[in-house]
Amino acid sequence: MTPFIAEIIGTGLLILLGGGIVANCVLKGTKGSGSGWIEITTAWGLAVFVGVVVAGPYSGAHLNPAVSIGLAVGGLFPWADVPMYILAQMIGAMIGSALVYAMYKDHFDATEDAGLKRAVFCTDPAIPNNFRNILSEILGTFVLVFCVFYFSEASLNDGANTTVGLGSIGAIPVAFVVWGIGLSLGGTTGYAINPARDLGPRIVHALLPIKGKINSGWSYAWIPIVGPILGAVLAALLFLAL
Amino acid sequence: MTPFIAEIIGTGLLILLGGGIVANCVLKGTKGSGSGWIEITTAWGLAVFVGVVVAGPYSGAHLNPAVSIGLAVGGLFPWADVPMYILAQMIGAMIGSALVYAMYKDHFDATEDAGLKRAVFCTDPAIPNNFRNILSEILGTFVLVFCVFYFSEASLNDGANTTVGLGSIGAIPVAFVVWGIGLSLGGTTGYAINPARDLGPRIVHALLPIKGKINSGWSYAWIPIVGPILGAVLAALLFLAL
Amino acid sequence: MTPFIAEIIGTGLLILLGGGIVANCVLKGTKGSGSGWIEITTAWGLAVFVGVVVAGPYSGAHLNPAVSIGLAVGGLFPWADVPMYILAQMIGAMIGSALVYAMYKDHFDATEDAGLKRAVFCTDPAIPNNFRNILSEILGTFVLVFCVFYFSEASLNDGANTTVGLGSIGAIPVAFVVWGIGLSLGGTTGYAINPARDLGPRIVHALLPIKGKINSGWSYAWIPIVGPILGAVLAALLFLAL
Amino acid sequence: MTPFIAEIIGTGLLILLGGGIVANCVLKGTKGSGSGWIEITTAWGLAVFVGVVVAGPYSGAHLNPAVSIGLAVGGLFPWADVPMYILAQMIGAMIGSALVYAMYKDHFDATEDAGLKRAVFCTDPAIPNNFRNILSEILGTFVLVFCVFYFSEASLNDGANTTVGLGSIGAIPVAFVVWGIGLSLGGTTGYAINPARDLGPRIVHALLPIKGKINSGWSYAWIPIVGPILGAVLAALLFLAL
Repeated sequence: MTPFIAEIIGTGLLILLGGGIVANCVLKGTKGSGSGWIEITTAWGLAVFVGVVVAGPYSGAHLNPAVSIGLAVGGLFPWADVPMYILAQMIGAMIGSALVYAMYKDHFDATEDAGLKRAVFCTDPAIPNNFRNILSEILGTFVLVFCVFYFSEASLNDGANTTVGLGSIGAIPVAFVVWGIGLSLGGTTGYAINPARDLGPRIVHALLPIKGKINSGWSYAWIPIVGPILGAVLAALLFLAL
Repeated sequence: MTPFIAEIIGTGLLILLGGGIVANCVLKGTKGSGSGWIEITTAWGLAVFVGVVVAGPYSGAHLNPAVSIGLAVGGLFPWADVPMYILAQMIGAMIGSALVYAMYKDHFDATEDAGLKRAVFCTDPAIPNNFRNILSEILGTFVLVFCVFYFSEASLNDGANTTVGLGSIGAIPVAFVVWGIGLSLGGTTGYAINPARDLGPRIVHALLPIKGKINSGWSYAWIPIVGPILGAVLAALLFLAL
Repeated sequence: MTPFIAEIIGTGLLILLGGGIVANCVLKGTKGSGSGWIEITTAWGLAVFVGVVVAGPYSGAHLNPAVSIGLAVGGLFPWADVPMYILAQMIGAMIGSALVYAMYKDHFDATEDAGLKRAVFCTDPAIPNNFRNILSEILGTFVLVFCVFYFSEASLNDGANTTVGLGSIGAIPVAFVVWGIGLSLGGTTGYAINPARDLGPRIVHALLPIKGKINSGWSYAWIPIVGPILGAVLAALLFLAL
Repeated sequence: MTPFIAEIIGTGLLILLGGGIVANCVLKGTKGSGSGWIEITTAWGLAVFVGVVVAGPYSGAHLNPAVSIGLAVGGLFPWADVPMYILAQMIGAMIGSALVYAMYKDHFDATEDAGLKRAVFCTDPAIPNNFRNILSEILGTFVLVFCVFYFSEASLNDGANTTVGLGSIGAIPVAFVVWGIGLSLGGTTGYAINPARDLGPRIVHALLPIKGKINSGWSYAWIPIVGPILGAVLAALLFLAL
């Protein structure tokens, strides 16, 4: 598997499972109807786990433009590969969210609230406030990327050459970090913390002929792009400073 | 322990614990009454964990005809052993679900809703739709079997000869994958993702003299057989292509 | 630490945390009021984790007479040590439940329902039925002890001489098994699956001057003793047969 | 990274994520509104995980004055470093809680109940009772620090020189212990079990111009300082005695 394919598949699995839990939670008539924050955040953590398990040995399993950019700023990933990784992550995220729609389509059709339908694809803030929403995305992504640096360093110290050690078990720490970020820092903006995770499915929402759909929230769309990148750069700079 | 016995016992434990959580959740008067999706999906993940811990070193812990077929397609398991594994998985699943009935019988008797009683045994769709229901089972099983291939490869790289490395700890990744599939992709059909898990208990439901029971849902029964097999074959083909 | 002390401390920690979650869940005015089955079963799993982490290297962390008896039947533990282990487990369980009472006393006093107060100490069946209640305890304990045999075997194969390998990480599998048993098989009797866990705190309930207390449920008390022992013996016999 | 910086950053991450879950749970209009005890305790466990992952290799990841004092009493940490560690932990806790306020400010403003706003910063008892509240904090911290001693010993036996072995995976056991303590022993006082976790954010609550805020609960503030220290000393003495 080339790194390009690995990032597509890994990010596709991430968004299939991540979008899936939101669909299961907010759409009408699903088996998981009535699920709450513990189901959503646990599933997103496990979605990361699945993506990292598969892609880890082939691409390092960034699955997130903010991670690729952050690692490049920190000197652990070549800048020349960043565009290719971001492209793959976008493709994967779009495929993943299209599959969620295909699978849950009958439940999309049964749901009246167009805002809930859009929530399966992309994030929007509980209380709109540019400064504070971007701060939320910065903080969440900072925690993620900062931890990734220390996982990478631990792996390098062990002589491994990826961000993942100990085989599949090595994917657990990053899943736990994302689980914790979601629980604690997801309350304001729904923790995109990943530009591809938000923009890719948002484009798919715009393209798909979803019954009774609302606009795709483009006025907010820049925040889950800029915030995560800033958070990742901050994490990299702090890592370098230390 | 022979592989045949290991698959019977492992699948039996899987269905005992998997059917048990549904009984605990939907039947009347149980201690876990009022449980929701987090309890159901966590318990099915742990049910897989228990089955894999016991059967892993002896049979590779397929516990699922779709896994056996998928690994055979992928060249990691001999076709000649597939029928024997499937037979063992069916026997185990039937024993497991019969034990759940024996244990929870008083709560079956106290429950009026015959659909809930059947739900302890086998799956049925939230919104019946052959195409979309089968797609759901394909996607869920694809994720499972695709991950199993990468766990196997990681184990082979480590010089191990089963799908399970690191002793009992090695059973955690597959449990986490099933936990995630259940949370995210279980919302439409209840994620059989395993023909034996669905058909074996369905037969037991048909045979047992359950008080006030409904039909055993035979018109739907082919979907959790065909869907998982297709998903597993797709996973194997993609694995081979990569 | 001698094995005797290790079993006292390990079982004490198990019951302190296990009784604690029930108190937190069912007593009036606690911070965890309104908690459900996921909190109870997760905490009991983690209670086992804590007990095993501390006692594992010194006594093998049985923490349960059914485990000691089962391992003795299976030839992995000397019969001569069984009485000493059971005595330590009973002492530990009594200390643990007394500490729960001391800590939550104000909430005991604020709670009217005497049945809920007793539930902090010992189990009672959702639907009383000697045959089926004992079957529940047999099945739950069978799963626990059967898994313990395979954890032990895996450890022996690795050259370790306790049931716990990989340091503190090695305590995770048994915690996961107990988590799963609780979720799935705890619905009928509340899963004692451990004679000391039930009888020790029941004696403490009888001795303590709890405000407005109900009887200590002695007519049921033999079932969580006999059931777990039968389940453990069955697990040992099946292990030996295989 | 020096130990001083590591303790600041590790404790900062702990309180950012720990305070974050309380904000997400109790403030008005958040995405996690309606969350309960499982979300709170899981997130605090993961908050510890994140802090330990980052700080572990550099400072041993105490993140808690009670841990530093307990390890010093037990002879595993030099007394001369205790004041520096406590200072760093206080700075980290204050920064962490200030970040939670900055991120969730709009939700603070939308919340009427001043007691809930304060709960994001520091603990207060469900039923005020000096003796029993301090006992609760003693017991919770005792379990934490006692386990830390056995993790440390296991690491020392493995030839490692920190409290954390196995890289990032080694942070899981302490996270699990804190998860269990929260679930089971958090019901009376909200489990500070860490003087810096409580006092640092309490000072921040006093200093910040929070809209419509209540007093900072100073009459209770000594209990989550004295209780955890006593619990840690008891754990150290028992460890030494054994």
